[in-house]
Amino acid sequence: MDSIKIFSPATVANVSCGFDVLGFCLDSVGDEMVIHKTSEKGIKITKIEGYDLPYEAKKNVAGVSALAMYEALQPDCGFEIEIYKKIKPGSGIGSSSASAAGSVYGMNELLGRPLNKTELTKHALKGEALASQSEHADNLAPAIFGGFTLVRSINPVDVIELPTPKDLFATLIHPQIEIKTSEARALLPNSVELKKAIAQWSNVGSLVHALHTSNYDILGKSLNDVIVEPYRKLLIPHFDTIKKTTLDSGALGCGISGSGPSIFALSKGKEDAEKVEKAMKKVYSKTEIPFYTFVSKINTEGIKVL
Amino acid sequence: MDSIKIFSPATVANVSCGFDVLGFCLDSVGDEMVIHKTSEKGIKITKIEGYDLPYEAKKNVAGVSALAMYEALQPDCGFEIEIYKKIKPGSGIGSSSASAAGSVYGMNELLGRPLNKTELTKHALKGEALASQSEHADNLAPAIFGGFTLVRSINPVDVIELPTPKDLFATLIHPQIEIKTSEARALLPNSVELKKAIAQWSNVGSLVHALHTSNYDILGKSLNDVIVEPYRKLLIPHFDTIKKTTLDSGALGCGISGSGPSIFALSKGKEDAEKVEKAMKKVYSKTEIPFYTFVSKINTEGIKVL
Repeated sequence: MDSIKIFSPATVANVSCGFDVLGFCLDSVGDEMVIHKTSEKGIKITKIEGYDLPYEAKKNVAGVSALAMYEALQPDCGFEIEIYKKIKPGSGIGSSSASAAGSVYGMNELLGRPLNKTELTKHALKGEALASQSEHADNLAPAIFGGFTLVRSINPVDVIELPTPKDLFATLIHPQIEIKTSEARALLPNSVELKKAIAQWSNVGSLVHALHTSNYDILGKSLNDVIVEPYRKLLIPHFDTIKKTTLDSGALGCGISGSGPSIFALSKGKEDAEKVEKAMKKVYSKTEIPFYTFVSKINTEGIKVL
Repeated sequence: MDSIKIFSPATVANVSCGFDVLGFCLDSVGDEMVIHKTSEKGIKITKIEGYDLPYEAKKNVAGVSALAMYEALQPDCGFEIEIYKKIKPGSGIGSSSASAAGSVYGMNELLGRPLNKTELTKHALKGEALASQSEHADNLAPAIFGGFTLVRSINPVDVIELPTPKDLFATLIHPQIEIKTSEARALLPNSVELKKAIAQWSNVGSLVHALHTSNYDILGKSLNDVIVEPYRKLLIPHFDTIKKTTLDSGALGCGISGSGPSIFALSKGKEDAEKVEKAMKKVYSKTEIPFYTFVSKINTEGIKVL
């Protein structure tokens, strides 16, 4: 096999309480990439469709993670990468992670899987760092492992795969304004009140419990972020209205997806998730801001060969 | 039934990463209390053995929680409480919680169980607050519910019962110096670095996952406290040596029990827990400080009628 086409999914990082560590994988939105094994050595990006991104491997997120893996493995071949970018950069649903994960996943498949998912995450982190100026794996881990993940540590990479309750659906709204991850991170304070930190880790613990027990009630109560959301929501027009409206429409919880501007809600059942989508649309229809929405089941498979 | 004898167990709060929210229940150490239903109304403490504690109900931890419950229920009777105190106050294994939980648990049994465990915790919090000058349920919840607990909120009281891996054993050492919970709390900063808070909630999440999956490896890695231990260990002589020695002896993890001075370790299997006990003894035998140690299985039943 010398060529492979893959689907690299969008993801939701943080999941309200779990800033920098929790994430889950989406199903209905993602990039496509085609990777070719070549006799000529090196990493080349030969095609980029969808968004205007650099072709030079060292400056491209998918290229940087590919180079990291390439240098580690030193294979007797090269790779050409075609990127069909569907996830808008800066949308808050793991656009850079999908790129960073896609190249290393595809190369690994073409090489006969010498690396496991943890090792792929390690190389993909290098690409992610180019985009966000910090190594974090809260989007990468769910993209690569699928489902819900908890990144216990990135040095060394230690990812915990959490169970996904089977009736859980996500609703996303993406207001078409751009927030750079690096800027959204710069907003955050260096220190936080101990009292708030305690509330946050209590919610992380109860969210993990809720996922293990498919307890939708506890899951909803745990989706509460007292540390990051108060800062980052200021960058997202009508965030409070969206949140109130989605909760009123039956969502279990609602929060900022990654560093925004996308907003996610989780619901029990597809029907509720669609009601929530309708409610989100209603709020943004009244504004001048372009947006799109979608409903997705939780993608427990993660990145895959098409 | 007009009289009841109960066993109110010692508990370990915080469990390293879960300051103020996590706790587990011990088996081999606890207070005993005898509660009598009387025709004369009111709450009376009629006997205290073991330690010198106030008889006046309003000044006694068990009395204050009893009064809180008594005022809420307004029963057509009164109660006399005998306290056989085995857990030394200020030892860090939930002495005040055992008292606070014991009175309300016993009264509830004598009244035919009008209250559930959550409601008992709510009243017991009043007694706990007398001892520590703050309402926290991280010892009360495991004493009342048994096993491992996560206190998601105290207002309203919301306790999550976590599973207990069946081979898990605790080893405790109690250096006989007194640390008041209120003083140990005063040591702590009001704010913490965001970076450290993230490490902490990542560990809380992975500890909860480890309990659900009986994954002893992840459990051990999660027993890491980067926020509270660095301050509180300064109050405990030879803490670092004990920690290093117990980990070298095969403990999964080791930390301060509650606000100290007791130190707990968790091990897989009784044999390992006993090796750890031996190692702890060896360290303290070289000092002038009186101490005692014990091994306990995790008590999944909690407070009970004898």
